[in-house]
Order: sequence, then C-alpha cells, then structure tokens
Amino acid sequence: MERIIIDMDEVIADPMGAMIDWYKKEHGGEFDYDKILNGSWSKGFPEHHQEMIIQRLKGPGFFRDLPVMEDAVEVLKELNKRYDLYIVSAAIEFPNSLKDKVEWMQDHFPFISWRQITLCGSKDLVAGDYMIDDHVKNLKGFKGKPYLFTAAHNLDITGYDRIDNWQHAASIFLK
Amino acid sequence: MERIIIDMDEVIADPMGAMIDWYKKEHGGEFDYDKILNGSWSKGFPEHHQEMIIQRLKGPGFFRDLPVMEDAVEVLKELNKRYDLYIVSAAIEFPNSLKDKVEWMQDHFPFISWRQITLCGSKDLVAGDYMIDDHVKNLKGFKGKPYLFTAAHNLDITGYDRIDNWQHAASIFLK
Repeated sequence: MERIIIDMDEVIADPMGAMIDWYKKEHGGEFDYDKILNGSWSKGFPEHHQEMIIQRLKGPGFFRDLPVMEDAVEVLKELNKRYDLYIVSAAIEFPNSLKDKVEWMQDHFPFISWRQITLCGSKDLVAGDYMIDDHVKNLKGFKGKPYLFTAAHNLDITGYDRIDNWQHAASIFLK
Repeated sequence: MERIIIDMDEVIADPMGAMIDWYKKEHGGEFDYDKILNGSWSKGFPEHHQEMIIQRLKGPGFFRDLPVMEDAVEVLKELNKRYDLYIVSAAIEFPNSLKDKVEWMQDHFPFISWRQITLCGSKDLVAGDYMIDDHVKNLKGFKGKPYLFTAAHNLDITGYDRIDNWQHAASIFLK
C-alpha cells in the first residue's frame, strides 16, 4: 500500500479562518491577505494585535474547536481504505495544542486511529510516497512526491504540483 | 550528518522505575519481574491493581516528573554535536502525556530543540540511520540499523544488537 502523509493546519483544519472570524467578531478589525504571502498568516493581523494573536494560538483550546476543511472527512475516509495514511502536524512548538489536536482528530476523523497520528517538530524524518502540505519548508526535504495544498499564504509559490481542495485530491488519488 | 532516532520511555526516561517506587510506597505491594518478559511492564503489578496502574499512566502529570536514565544527559549532549538527533516517542495513545513529555525534555535536555522531538502513534514512518529503542515493534520496520536498548521487559529477546546503558552507547557512537 502506498503511503500518504497529510498535514493538519490549513489542509484538513482551518485555524486561519477560525482566527479571522474570532478577530472580526471580538475586535472588529481587518485582515490583510497581501501581508501573509510567503510568510505566517499571523502577519495578516494589524501590528498592534500580533502578540495577542500569538498568545491565543499558543494557549490551550484554540486547536480543539477548529472547522474542518470542506470535503476532507469524506475524501480521507476513502483514502484511508486504499492507502497507508498518516496525519502529521508540526505542533511540538505549541505544547498546549498537542492533546487538542489528538482529540480534534478523534471527533472529526474517528476512522483514523491514534496509530496514524504524528505530532512533530520537523517533518524531515518522516518518509512516505506522497506528502500533502501547505508549507514548502515541510515538502522540500521529502523524498517522495510532494503536493502543495493551496492556502492563502502560498498563492505565490511555484515549482510544486498543487492540490487546491479535497475534491481535487480525490481526482488525483481516488480516480 | 548521520541521523540517530532515540526513544524516550525505558531509554532516556524511567517510567517503570517511577511506577514501581510509587506503588511500593503507596500500596506496599510487590513487583514481579518474571511477568513482564516480552510484554508490557504494567503486567508486573498484581492483577487487582492493573487498572489503577493504567489509570495513573494515562492521567495528567505521570510523565512530567520521571527520573532520567543514568548518563543519558551527558551522552546525548555529545551525540547532539556529532549527529542529526531526534527523540521519538510513541505517545499519541496517551494524550495527557504529550505536553508533559515536551516539558520534561525542555527541563532535562534543554540542548535538544523542540524541532528534534516527535510524538507519534507508530514509528513505521520515521526514517534514519540508527534507531535506539526498547521495543522490537518499533525497531522491526526500521530501514536503518536498529539497536535494542536493554530493559527489564526485553531480556529474553534475541536477534538484535543491544545497547545496555548510555556509557555503552557512548562506546559505540562517540569512539
């Protein structure tokens, strides 16, 4: 069975969308999409609120209630039958997110076992046939076939085959 | 730089020793080393206390205060200069242990960055040149050179080169 390694944030979970929704509601502020190209999406919030955003991201609970990306559940359910599937998230920098991420997976993707989940500092040591990720830093050392999952922060990136959404992924892996 | 993948429990941390000490103090009971050969060390506690031991293992805090294995700090400090070092623990089954394990690493091995830590469900997807682990289930799928780290539960195992303690590891990797 071929192995697919799938990222969490901005790929099957939507932390950026959740943070923007919360910020608009609580602070009525604007989000600047131009500022996040080729960087962290936290840069899209106004300068004087950067620290608050980072604190919210690092606190307990933020990753527990994130929205699921459209069609991710249905497509991963099928991928899980045909491939050796792993969910790998570079999360160790945020110790409060670790338990939240495992519980979030159990809630939304109960067909994926805890055996298939990895929380790492760097993705350099994971090996597989395909990797689906929104960050070049995670894809560039990968020995298999990398796919850049399209996100607001990576629209300028060239040089990678892209997956734009989970229907697109289905058309590649489930045809 | 060659990559070494090092396990946590029974290799650089001593959860079995911590549990036995606690059990003897709190319950005055005996631990049966014969019962743990080729199995989980929790089997060494009397039958009627098995559930209590598992609950303590799964609860928050147990992995936060574990003793460090003898000489592990000094030897890992040197290994970290000469090798591409990763600490990989199969911990996802125990969501309460995840933050505890990252903080324990920061306390005792501050020279190892969060980038070098991985908490996984299965070690099948990690790749490297050497793996040091006390469980055959983690070593058997590894493509590099495996070393079985000697622990009370694996004394009967044959077919693997062993590392008996961290001075022994130093004699292999730091000569």
